[in-house]
Amino acid sequence: MTVGHHNEATALNGVLAYGEPELPAPTGRQNEATALSRVLEPHSVAIIGASANPDKRGYQIIKALKNAGYGYPILPVNPKGGTILELPVFSDVDALPECVDIAVIVRPAEEVPDILIQCGKKGIAGAVVLAHGFRERGDKGSAAETRLLDALKKSGVRIIGPNTSGMLNCTVQADLIGLPELPPSGPISVLTQSGNMVLSVVEDSRSINGPGFDVIAGLGNQTDIEYGELIEELSRRESTRSIAIYNEGFLDGRGFLDAAARVGLSCPIVMLRGGRSIEGRKAALSHTGSIAGADEIAVKVLAQMGVTLVDRSDELLPVAALLATSPLPKPKTGIAVLTDGGGHATLAVDALSRAGVPLASLSEDTKTKLRSVLGDEASVENPIDVASAADAYPDVFPECIEILASDPQVGLVLTNGLFGAYHIRFDESLLKAENSAAERIVALRKASGLPMVFHSCYGNRKPENHDILRNGGIQIFPSIDWAVTGSKALFERANWLSKQNSNADRLAPDARRVFVPSGLSAETTAREMLQKLGVDTGEWSAASDAGAVSSVVSSFGKPCAVKVDSSVIVHKSDVGGVRLGVTREAASAAADDITRAMASQAPPVTTFGFIVTPMVDHGLELFVGAVNDSVFGPVVLFGSGGVLVEAVKDVTFRAAPLSPAEALDMINETGVAKILDGFRNYRPVDKRSLAEFISSVSLAVMRMENLSELDINPIIANESGIYPVDVRLVGK
Amino acid sequence: MTVGHHNEATALNGVLAYGEPELPAPTGRQNEATALSRVLEPHSVAIIGASANPDKRGYQIIKALKNAGYGYPILPVNPKGGTILELPVFSDVDALPECVDIAVIVRPAEEVPDILIQCGKKGIAGAVVLAHGFRERGDKGSAAETRLLDALKKSGVRIIGPNTSGMLNCTVQADLIGLPELPPSGPISVLTQSGNMVLSVVEDSRSINGPGFDVIAGLGNQTDIEYGELIEELSRRESTRSIAIYNEGFLDGRGFLDAAARVGLSCPIVMLRGGRSIEGRKAALSHTGSIAGADEIAVKVLAQMGVTLVDRSDELLPVAALLATSPLPKPKTGIAVLTDGGGHATLAVDALSRAGVPLASLSEDTKTKLRSVLGDEASVENPIDVASAADAYPDVFPECIEILASDPQVGLVLTNGLFGAYHIRFDESLLKAENSAAERIVALRKASGLPMVFHSCYGNRKPENHDILRNGGIQIFPSIDWAVTGSKALFERANWLSKQNSNADRLAPDARRVFVPSGLSAETTAREMLQKLGVDTGEWSAASDAGAVSSVVSSFGKPCAVKVDSSVIVHKSDVGGVRLGVTREAASAAADDITRAMASQAPPVTTFGFIVTPMVDHGLELFVGAVNDSVFGPVVLFGSGGVLVEAVKDVTFRAAPLSPAEALDMINETGVAKILDGFRNYRPVDKRSLAEFISSVSLAVMRMENLSELDINPIIANESGIYPVDVRLVGK
Repeated sequence: MTVGHHNEATALNGVLAYGEPELPAPTGRQNEATALSRVLEPHSVAIIGASANPDKRGYQIIKALKNAGYGYPILPVNPKGGTILELPVFSDVDALPECVDIAVIVRPAEEVPDILIQCGKKGIAGAVVLAHGFRERGDKGSAAETRLLDALKKSGVRIIGPNTSGMLNCTVQADLIGLPELPPSGPISVLTQSGNMVLSVVEDSRSINGPGFDVIAGLGNQTDIEYGELIEELSRRESTRSIAIYNEGFLDGRGFLDAAARVGLSCPIVMLRGGRSIEGRKAALSHTGSIAGADEIAVKVLAQMGVTLVDRSDELLPVAALLATSPLPKPKTGIAVLTDGGGHATLAVDALSRAGVPLASLSEDTKTKLRSVLGDEASVENPIDVASAADAYPDVFPECIEILASDPQVGLVLTNGLFGAYHIRFDESLLKAENSAAERIVALRKASGLPMVFHSCYGNRKPENHDILRNGGIQIFPSIDWAVTGSKALFERANWLSKQNSNADRLAPDARRVFVPSGLSAETTAREMLQKLGVDTGEWSAASDAGAVSSVVSSFGKPCAVKVDSSVIVHKSDVGGVRLGVTREAASAAADDITRAMASQAPPVTTFGFIVTPMVDHGLELFVGAVNDSVFGPVVLFGSGGVLVEAVKDVTFRAAPLSPAEALDMINETGVAKILDGFRNYRPVDKRSLAEFISSVSLAVMRMENLSELDINPIIANESGIYPVDVRLVGK
Repeated sequence: MTVGHHNEATALNGVLAYGEPELPAPTGRQNEATALSRVLEPHSVAIIGASANPDKRGYQIIKALKNAGYGYPILPVNPKGGTILELPVFSDVDALPECVDIAVIVRPAEEVPDILIQCGKKGIAGAVVLAHGFRERGDKGSAAETRLLDALKKSGVRIIGPNTSGMLNCTVQADLIGLPELPPSGPISVLTQSGNMVLSVVEDSRSINGPGFDVIAGLGNQTDIEYGELIEELSRRESTRSIAIYNEGFLDGRGFLDAAARVGLSCPIVMLRGGRSIEGRKAALSHTGSIAGADEIAVKVLAQMGVTLVDRSDELLPVAALLATSPLPKPKTGIAVLTDGGGHATLAVDALSRAGVPLASLSEDTKTKLRSVLGDEASVENPIDVASAADAYPDVFPECIEILASDPQVGLVLTNGLFGAYHIRFDESLLKAENSAAERIVALRKASGLPMVFHSCYGNRKPENHDILRNGGIQIFPSIDWAVTGSKALFERANWLSKQNSNADRLAPDARRVFVPSGLSAETTAREMLQKLGVDTGEWSAASDAGAVSSVVSSFGKPCAVKVDSSVIVHKSDVGGVRLGVTREAASAAADDITRAMASQAPPVTTFGFIVTPMVDHGLELFVGAVNDSVFGPVVLFGSGGVLVEAVKDVTFRAAPLSPAEALDMINETGVAKILDGFRNYRPVDKRSLAEFISSVSLAVMRMENLSELDINPIIANESGIYPVDVRLVGK
């Protein structure tokens, strides 16, 4: 569904329009819109717990709705009746008209369940529940939580909260939080687990004249409506062009990943995560009581699904503003930096380099044209320095941008320096020329579709030409770093979208599931299961006794590793359960050695077999594994093997399943990737085979029920192949 | 010298005061002040190339000086004579009064040398040279550069520039750049290699109501006055409390390090570096033509000398503001986060954790007192959440801060959230109470000396209570991240200062110097030199022939490594020049093998010896080295050895010489440090011995003349000691 029923006339409107206590007829909206869409864009609001006391939330929300110019019925409910702010008060929920879109429940926790039941009976689609005292209180809130869950089930009412600061829809001017002023309406929707972050994004937007907001919702405890459903619904709104999220963890991380990957195809998601550090997690827990996954995993799997992550709270809004308003760079292009001063250019280029955004290499034709504008002495390599050319002639910017727009290597133009403030720096008379330059740039943007990002060190002065750019959908920031972080987000999103097209269908895992026994599996069991699920675990053989070991070693025709095979031995080498480089002649004795070692354990290990693998004589030790993450479900790990590199943590993560192309990206993120390409004495390893292997593991773990963790460590990789040396599979 | 002669009356004043062309008597200041101090705080300014045309720089500077309210003589020079802006114009330099403090030379490059000579004759202390067309133009500017250097030598005039945007002294209201408004005066001095960065810091300060500026100087080409001298002079000014630098590289990096270490003891230095990336370096080179060192080295050696580095251009000014105005946390304390909302607290704590700033653990007494203010339900663990307690009662902040100030574990209080804007968020009537809370906080700060940093998401609204804090020397930022970066800077500076006290005198290297021969030295030569310079290179022996090798191996009494010893063999193993695990019996044959291998080289290697070292049977491979960095001079490296870890770059840097304590810090920065503490199969290594070894290498390289690089790689470290396995010494 889309918005646009803004002026739709309903019988309910009468309540507001005439201030009379007539009972309006149903809106009929319950038939045409989903409950959630009615919640996010309410065309009627009941305030349950309305108050005539200006210090109370039940008054402030009514005041805010009226102040904001909300054009639909406002229906206060209070047993005392009368009027509040000239609106007739309904004595109870039952007295309300049928099928109100949303109720804001301002009553304390213990009353909420009954109110929800009453709301359900009246066909109210949803409610914002402000009360706290539920799950976030731990044991103290558990009785209230149980009653709440029960009421949700019985009533069918969808709720935001409890323990939320509320919700705003700026598009229909509905302020259910009670802010002193409604933020301007525009394309950014915000989901947050912190009420104060609502204030932060609103203030951050104010300070850069941001493009404004559609829906802003405080999720609270997410007892009913949570992230996944919200982002899907927001992405269906034409008025939402980007979703900014302040997240302190997920109740259903895997559900979010799935939803994000779908939503991301049409609507960018920007996320600031709180509770990333151990200390921060404690602070977040005391706050909303949900679970943040291990930070390293979260960062990788969210990016994998196309979510733009920002590390700094001051960058959430600027990046969301840019993603909401800018087209994306074309694939395989780079950025052109257009500047009026060397220092700013140098800083922008440094920051772009750190961010991994490539500079465009300009064509000779482009350089020639730039020189014709800037003179022969100008630096027309990228960054392009207009130097003093702009001091008296601001049109040098649109002239250069026009040239850059026709270079196919240029995917985005980042203009930085004093833009739009020459009239402040030099002479007021330049204002007119600067405004006209800004208008030319807006026209160029419309004509070319070229993404543009601006920095001006005078940004905080808000000269009017900056607003000309903004009104033309071009963002201008007072910080070079914001401009660069935003540009990076545009390039990363463009790359992500192009990847989605190329490998969408290889990833449907076979639906049949295999159960992983609890605890450690014997290695042969683990390898058999992996084989069955499509993972090539290489040459290996089970052997039941010394004789079998001997004949298996013979059949491999080269020295082998002989290891004990048992689900009770956690560290095989620590208990004498491994013999390396075992020849045919020594095979039987090696098995006997291991048998004796098992007998000498306390208590003795009596039930075990052997696993035999041919020795791999050289190569690089790698690590492939998987964990069933408590937040994000099956996650695949890849990194260097071996103790030294474990200490420096050369490892990366992806949510399973993942394509070989994504696995290749994963490999290339690690330090060991450099060695895989051939380094000093190491010959190159076939990364594609390795990527296929990782992808096969990811598909396998999707089919494993009860998985806790899988370690294939080490895998030895050399010029002739990859060889899983040891496999550990653990069920929950 | 100090400032404070602001109102000092001189004969020169008459020129400005009465606008008459009388020739004033000398100021006499040349006897009491150094030339550089006169340049940085001029009490008379000549503008050479003054102009009556408002579009010209020679007019704008005079206008700006008058606008700014400069209280000393302004002396325009132009052959045309007459008056400009009511000031009498001198026809040439010779016509000027004696001993003017500074001349601003607005004339083109080719005229500058002659003008300088004239200035010298008139006793003018220094000049700001705006012209470009010198070294930064490469070959094109080299003739001008030569003439300039010559004029500098002959005239004795000190210059800032050329190719600079100029200089401001806000304390004496001297604007030699020509800004439309003089920035407010205050404690921050700024040195920059980019004119636009002057505008950036001024605007950034404006947007946070920063504490204002003392001296702001664009260094330009640094042909005469450069960083080291400037920071020393600025640190002598009472009006300068922090120095913010935008740096694109050093002409004399070692000189800067030495100066920074001295200056840092009394005055904090904050630096933003441009040209850190390869692309950025290119941009910077085209800009000022100086040299940025390898980024990794620069980051470490600058921090070693106490320089606070910021990575983002938008953080230079906020951090400088905080360092200029805040006391430092006491050693071994942590930070207390005081907040009014979970989300902001979580984000602050996350950012502090990333920044490595410890949270204070509050005493039970503190928690009890906090509970008495905030109620039993409040979270009084750090972060302390006042939650809704502040909504109607802003004094909850000073009350909590007062409690925290008496906890010896609390080194700094970071208050974050809505501070000072409850009257915006809730009710205007709160304004008075908020202002009084801010006043209480300022009083607390004065009484306790406790460092305080504030964040408010309403910071950009600039409520008046924020200015109450600022006027009390307390910074309040609109960005959590700035507040955290600033807090980190305070803790790091406190740590650095406490380290300077503890190990100052062990570092004076022996003055005698040893010459390193050009090219590669034979390993025995290298080890002998290191031994002589106080580095314990362990057990090794030279041997001239097979017989000697045999007897040396015998005398070691265990298997040895036997290697060719020659200054022409770069990679010993690649040419069959190494035999490992050589026993007494096999020694002679091993030497013969190596001799044959040498004979088979093309051309045959005929002059060589042997070096014999006992085998080390296990341990961790480490790397200790040194390079003679083109920017920073001798720099010591430490990291993991071996190819795998080379790929993940586990290495860190320090300028030589360094104390064992600093070397221990260095070790602990690396990934391998974790293994040195004992990890899996690795037993702990004595880090102190390793640190002593690194320190001894650092002292040795300080005595090496003509050093290019030294690699001791690998060093094997195990529980019984450290063993340099291979040593490579290369002279320039």
